[in-house]
Amino acid sequence: MHTNASSPEAKTKINTIVWQDNAVVLIDQRALPLEESCLTCTDYREVVEAIKNLTVRGAPAIGVAAAMGIALGTLSFCGDSYDKIQQEFDEICRQFAASRPTARNLFWAIERMRARFAASLSQRAGTGRKPESEIGHPADATSLSSSPRDIAKIQNDLIAEAIGICEEDIAINIRLGENGAALIPDGARILTHCNAGALATAGYGTALGVVRSAWRQGKNIHVYADETRPVLQGARLTAWELTREGIPCTLITDNMAAFLMKEKRVDLVVVGADRIAANGDTANKIGTYGLAVLARAHGLPLFIAAPLSTIDASLADGARIPIEERPHAEVTHCGKTQTAPEGVFVWNPAFDVTPAELITAIITEEGVIHPPFDAGIKSLHQP
Amino acid sequence: MHTNASSPEAKTKINTIVWQDNAVVLIDQRALPLEESCLTCTDYREVVEAIKNLTVRGAPAIGVAAAMGIALGTLSFCGDSYDKIQQEFDEICRQFAASRPTARNLFWAIERMRARFAASLSQRAGTGRKPESEIGHPADATSLSSSPRDIAKIQNDLIAEAIGICEEDIAINIRLGENGAALIPDGARILTHCNAGALATAGYGTALGVVRSAWRQGKNIHVYADETRPVLQGARLTAWELTREGIPCTLITDNMAAFLMKEKRVDLVVVGADRIAANGDTANKIGTYGLAVLARAHGLPLFIAAPLSTIDASLADGARIPIEERPHAEVTHCGKTQTAPEGVFVWNPAFDVTPAELITAIITEEGVIHPPFDAGIKSLHQP
Repeated sequence: MHTNASSPEAKTKINTIVWQDNAVVLIDQRALPLEESCLTCTDYREVVEAIKNLTVRGAPAIGVAAAMGIALGTLSFCGDSYDKIQQEFDEICRQFAASRPTARNLFWAIERMRARFAASLSQRAGTGRKPESEIGHPADATSLSSSPRDIAKIQNDLIAEAIGICEEDIAINIRLGENGAALIPDGARILTHCNAGALATAGYGTALGVVRSAWRQGKNIHVYADETRPVLQGARLTAWELTREGIPCTLITDNMAAFLMKEKRVDLVVVGADRIAANGDTANKIGTYGLAVLARAHGLPLFIAAPLSTIDASLADGARIPIEERPHAEVTHCGKTQTAPEGVFVWNPAFDVTPAELITAIITEEGVIHPPFDAGIKSLHQP
Repeated sequence: MHTNASSPEAKTKINTIVWQDNAVVLIDQRALPLEESCLTCTDYREVVEAIKNLTVRGAPAIGVAAAMGIALGTLSFCGDSYDKIQQEFDEICRQFAASRPTARNLFWAIERMRARFAASLSQRAGTGRKPESEIGHPADATSLSSSPRDIAKIQNDLIAEAIGICEEDIAINIRLGENGAALIPDGARILTHCNAGALATAGYGTALGVVRSAWRQGKNIHVYADETRPVLQGARLTAWELTREGIPCTLITDNMAAFLMKEKRVDLVVVGADRIAANGDTANKIGTYGLAVLARAHGLPLFIAAPLSTIDASLADGARIPIEERPHAEVTHCGKTQTAPEGVFVWNPAFDVTPAELITAIITEEGVIHPPFDAGIKSLHQP
């Protein structure tokens, strides 16, 4: 994960989340673009807080951060039995699961870390560990005293799993980017919303991964970035990523997107996703649904770019995707500056759901899924 | 224009623009909602600057401010001939006409002040003044020396005209509001964009005039206010006006409007206008066009509320309405806080044009105009 200063890509490489010296190091996305600083978390609860307060955000990045945070949490195991260690692990996972509700990748990462924990526990030296379903039964081996050597093994396994998830995420994004770039014509003017870039993932990005791949293939593209109120991920993060890499980028306020389309200044829309239901209905940053309606009204394609870990095949459609409502101060303020009067009511859903019928295609690392999405999702997604 | 402290409406009355002691006093709308302060202009160029820098904004308010600013300008006449005074007057009008390009009411007000000036000049004592078309001809009476008494008469006439325009504007809004309130069902949840309120006019408001009238008729209404980036007139001004009057108001970011509609939390949209073409195409704050497309897609009515002075019958349709592009810093910053990286391109159109076919009705002081708008506009509008 260290930057190779000699590579031409090194200057633009963004290490959103790094495991370093038994700590989780996160780019502090709240401080961008004015300040490039990192937050070093040595306690898993700091990672939970970093997810809640948007130091790290973006569905895949939340998943990676949670995986690393869970690994970090294992370093503070203090139980003297496997029973107690299981309880500690469950509590760590519970806290991450409660950090933010919408991003599927968060729960996917927790499930993966849980599976690795169970496997690691069952493999520990000389116990003939029973399956996870029996963990916690009074007569079970889990009530045995824990050994320092076994604990270290579990910790190392979980750290390796988290680093693996992080590295896989970058590789997935690059494949996804290649798949998506095939859909981007030379000369395309691309509208994107929020930040589905390197900062929303372990690196490279989903929607911006598609943009990066098209750009690196030499296509002459121009990106329009919605600023994306209330948290301004488009202005603060997408514009920062793209200008840093020299990809032409024009910033607009969210309410200019329709006029941009009417004036024929844009050819297609590509965004990320926080959760995709089995039928293709997609939860993404608030404002995506509006863009989808507008894109359809103007005859423009709308592409969703997301790894398969964003798919929640347990939900038949988008109606049951939990939509997070965030603090009112995000809307009544711009950063720290109050912009609205006291006493006004606020509605602040962080996401909306775009129905599958407004989506042209879903771009994944395993290929592009075309409508009807049910079959394509079923064939590519192995839950 | 003085507030009557004993009336129940006094507490909520908003004196956006007042002529006071030979000065133009404007509520400083840049400071709202955190600070309620006024700017007192004693030089007409301060009024020009106040229009440019959005101390005063909103098409009808710009018209009233320009009328008062022109009246203020006459107080500094120093020409010793009517020829020179005419030149001074033309220069004042030219500066106001160059202040902002889109709002029709600005040009309407300038034309009205020009007509009053011409009439006043022609009526001055003992000159038998020729028609305006002959002004400036070398042999004309305008080359005669000006008399202090005649100058004072012209000044008083123009001050009276400006105050008249201001008072008429409030009366027009109240009539417009009554006409519009008939379209608002009891229990309606109303979405509005930008500020078409008391602050956008001499008082009472156009879109918010409709809201006020419905509220004062005892209808149980709820307003959703788009915050309206980049200048946040919805958050700063509409939310301030409505909460001050106790009208229930929920603030959302612009990109939430579509989801609000999808979730069936809103029944209709009502906005103001900056310029309406002969066919009903309407320029209004950027984002209005998007709302219009979204309203249509969700089966919701979209009402435009505007005085007849907003109509520009010289334009067959909206394609020729000049759209102001404003400074990039409005988009790269929120207030004084920079939110975007250096080097990003910016597009900042202050208005967009909504085609007539997306408009349900245009609410004016003389009645509600239904589609097709051409005939209704022609019958009500006397240019």
